[in-house]
Amino acid sequence: VSAVSSTEIAAALIELLGSETKVSTGSSILAHHAHDGGLIEGRTPDAVVFPESTDDVAAVMRYATEHRIPVTPYGAGTSRGGKTVPLFGGISLDLSRMDAIVAVHPDDFDVVVQPGVLRKALNARLAEHGLFFPVDPGADASLGGMASTNASGTTTVRYGGMRPNVLALEAVLADGSVVRTGTRARKSSAGYDMTNLLIGAEGTLGVITELTLRIHPIPEKTVVARVSFDDLANASKAVVALTASSSIISRIELLDAHTISIVNAHFGTELVEAPTLWIEYGGSKKAIEDDIEFGREIWEELGSIDIVVEGDPTAQHRIWEARHNFGPALWARHPGKTSTGTDICVPISELPSAIAYARTLIDETGLDVSLVAHAGDGNFHFVFMVNPASDEPALVKRIYKSMAEHALACGGTSSAEHGIGVEKQGFLLLEHGDLLPAMRAIKAALDPAGILNPGKIFADTTRA
Amino acid sequence: VSAVSSTEIAAALIELLGSETKVSTGSSILAHHAHDGGLIEGRTPDAVVFPESTDDVAAVMRYATEHRIPVTPYGAGTSRGGKTVPLFGGISLDLSRMDAIVAVHPDDFDVVVQPGVLRKALNARLAEHGLFFPVDPGADASLGGMASTNASGTTTVRYGGMRPNVLALEAVLADGSVVRTGTRARKSSAGYDMTNLLIGAEGTLGVITELTLRIHPIPEKTVVARVSFDDLANASKAVVALTASSSIISRIELLDAHTISIVNAHFGTELVEAPTLWIEYGGSKKAIEDDIEFGREIWEELGSIDIVVEGDPTAQHRIWEARHNFGPALWARHPGKTSTGTDICVPISELPSAIAYARTLIDETGLDVSLVAHAGDGNFHFVFMVNPASDEPALVKRIYKSMAEHALACGGTSSAEHGIGVEKQGFLLLEHGDLLPAMRAIKAALDPAGILNPGKIFADTTRA
Repeated sequence: VSAVSSTEIAAALIELLGSETKVSTGSSILAHHAHDGGLIEGRTPDAVVFPESTDDVAAVMRYATEHRIPVTPYGAGTSRGGKTVPLFGGISLDLSRMDAIVAVHPDDFDVVVQPGVLRKALNARLAEHGLFFPVDPGADASLGGMASTNASGTTTVRYGGMRPNVLALEAVLADGSVVRTGTRARKSSAGYDMTNLLIGAEGTLGVITELTLRIHPIPEKTVVARVSFDDLANASKAVVALTASSSIISRIELLDAHTISIVNAHFGTELVEAPTLWIEYGGSKKAIEDDIEFGREIWEELGSIDIVVEGDPTAQHRIWEARHNFGPALWARHPGKTSTGTDICVPISELPSAIAYARTLIDETGLDVSLVAHAGDGNFHFVFMVNPASDEPALVKRIYKSMAEHALACGGTSSAEHGIGVEKQGFLLLEHGDLLPAMRAIKAALDPAGILNPGKIFADTTRA
Repeated sequence: VSAVSSTEIAAALIELLGSETKVSTGSSILAHHAHDGGLIEGRTPDAVVFPESTDDVAAVMRYATEHRIPVTPYGAGTSRGGKTVPLFGGISLDLSRMDAIVAVHPDDFDVVVQPGVLRKALNARLAEHGLFFPVDPGADASLGGMASTNASGTTTVRYGGMRPNVLALEAVLADGSVVRTGTRARKSSAGYDMTNLLIGAEGTLGVITELTLRIHPIPEKTVVARVSFDDLANASKAVVALTASSSIISRIELLDAHTISIVNAHFGTELVEAPTLWIEYGGSKKAIEDDIEFGREIWEELGSIDIVVEGDPTAQHRIWEARHNFGPALWARHPGKTSTGTDICVPISELPSAIAYARTLIDETGLDVSLVAHAGDGNFHFVFMVNPASDEPALVKRIYKSMAEHALACGGTSSAEHGIGVEKQGFLLLEHGDLLPAMRAIKAALDPAGILNPGKIFADTTRA
């Protein structure tokens, strides 16, 4: 904890940034930036700063380094696991005002954005050119936050997550220096890959102030197949077969019967309440028809009980809105409870056994749990609704640990797309204990004062 | 330079590794590992070590760290620019005996290999499963070397270079510790991206001892279109239009008239000696026909003077063999000279002007120069044949610098796929001077004694 008082910090920042409107100490704003709706308890920041330029960010970082004040970057606040929660107070650096789309280069399939741009706003703009940015974590996240978390989501099976879709970054390092990584060229081998080092660093190595992103043509046509099975095992086996059979599948989401029942209750749909794949195909009409025809053979062989092929864009939109708003639907159903989820990812052939194993562990607990999976990547989330004041969070953590150990044994990861934050530091130790000294050495080299998002990723080396 | 004598080093290594056959001080072997056929003069290593296991590599690194002996990793020796040339003697660590294909997982589209596996041998093995590893730098490079260089090549326009195709690595760090990065899962957000940090680090941060690679289905059908134009400007404009028009193009190579004339002379072909695109399509018969039909419109609009569509696999193979052996063909033509090439990459819309600008600079020199470009990525190589003892290398470097400055101004890079090594350290300064302190801090953090491939990437911080 810094030796400088909240009042001094706010006054100094106002003077530095030349404007009172860029610094807030209002209690509701401080409280809003003190948590992420999850289980992590932080310490209310001393001030929330709303920089409007890279220069503002650099000024904040120089000040923070000089006075050893923790800085926790904050985007749209949609992430979980404690990544945006200030553990030691200090400055919450809210980048939402840096929300300009700086340049669109349709011929080069790239776009330059500030970190506070939200992905839906970006896609609305890109649609004018018949283009889109594919990474889709569900929530309307900020691009800077998505890069810092190494976000992925429903379309990753086809387009990849953030890494293959970020060409270049501008960032402010702990000492206030402004650096540019990568270029707008499609590839580069000029020195160490600082772009990918900042992606997924959860704001512990630098503050991203600009991103150059790869963008893609919107497919000519899109069709969604909803395919239900009588059990989860067959649904997950179908995923393995599908990923090998088609190159134009852009989404393979797996939902269990309980998840579908919640969707039906909340969104007024009448979907078959059975384990179901939502499969999106994007391409030419002919290619889609061919691949769905081939898919039908797979589904029927695995005993599918219902197949609906949906070509209408409005109906498709409704499906993905339900998928993206499943979290809020779940929260509305369990007032007073908090959701906590697993984020396992395994090699695709291991998906059926990994889900079956998880299901066995879960069934013993009696907790309310729903399965939503980016199944085409081998990534599955079990979402638990828990009472934070009970022993339920600890119980979930124990189950998650067993799932993580199982995943690691079959070549998978404990953290596919949500990052480490605070909650999963034990899993990082389990998964990459051998790498932690090197990761810590990099952190110490780039942020010797330990002021950038302290307490995240590795608890014991970043305390400010 | 180490204080330990060559004799002591060799004796100690033989004892450590328990075998005389793993250590060589034979003069021809030492000489072979002292250069890469390019312009960089190194210092003959004290010993060449041929490790046969990760344990061997770890033992070498522990010894080297203890005695402050430089270690220069060596794969197949196909890279240029000095990356494998020992600048301070010490140990050349030749990984060619670690050439096992450890596991093929066709259902998960991944393969686990040791670093000394050559890409052609890997593809011969994968062909049994209808699969292939796409990254194709031309030479029959080793996979460990390709990762360390961040190699790419002819197929990158469709499949990407090494980064999106490496899932996980095992590596030995400077202190001899063995670490594993990534997993076999398609994605992970578990801590810093150590996989991409090692990729392209040119052996300065660790020695790669195992790689888990993504593999891909061999397309159902492949067709190559050879399209010639009356000038280079129209050929490069066609590239820009093509990249936006088809998603099944797997190669777009651009060769100028001089390059084609050398190919004809060396390989006995009778290709039209004009600026030419070699475009490979891979997919279904129908999709290829459709896309070539669309391509024809583009080519004809830009005044193509010759179009040959080649469906025969043997004829296609002959084309790519000529492309891949263009270097040797050129060397055979200029005995006593050395080749040195540029490796610029620009956003695709800038390709025509970047090539035109380079051509102007080059025409003033009167040097023998050939253009071979991975044009679909915006990456072009001008290959110069120079007399190492003359002022020609310095002249080429001056031109390259002007080309690099032009590329940076339009959002490109000076080093697309060949890395920095020794030759391009000045360009790295030009391109990422702001990032060098962070890169150097990482190097110092992971290799405090500076023994891993000293003198590469940044000259002044890695001297052993």
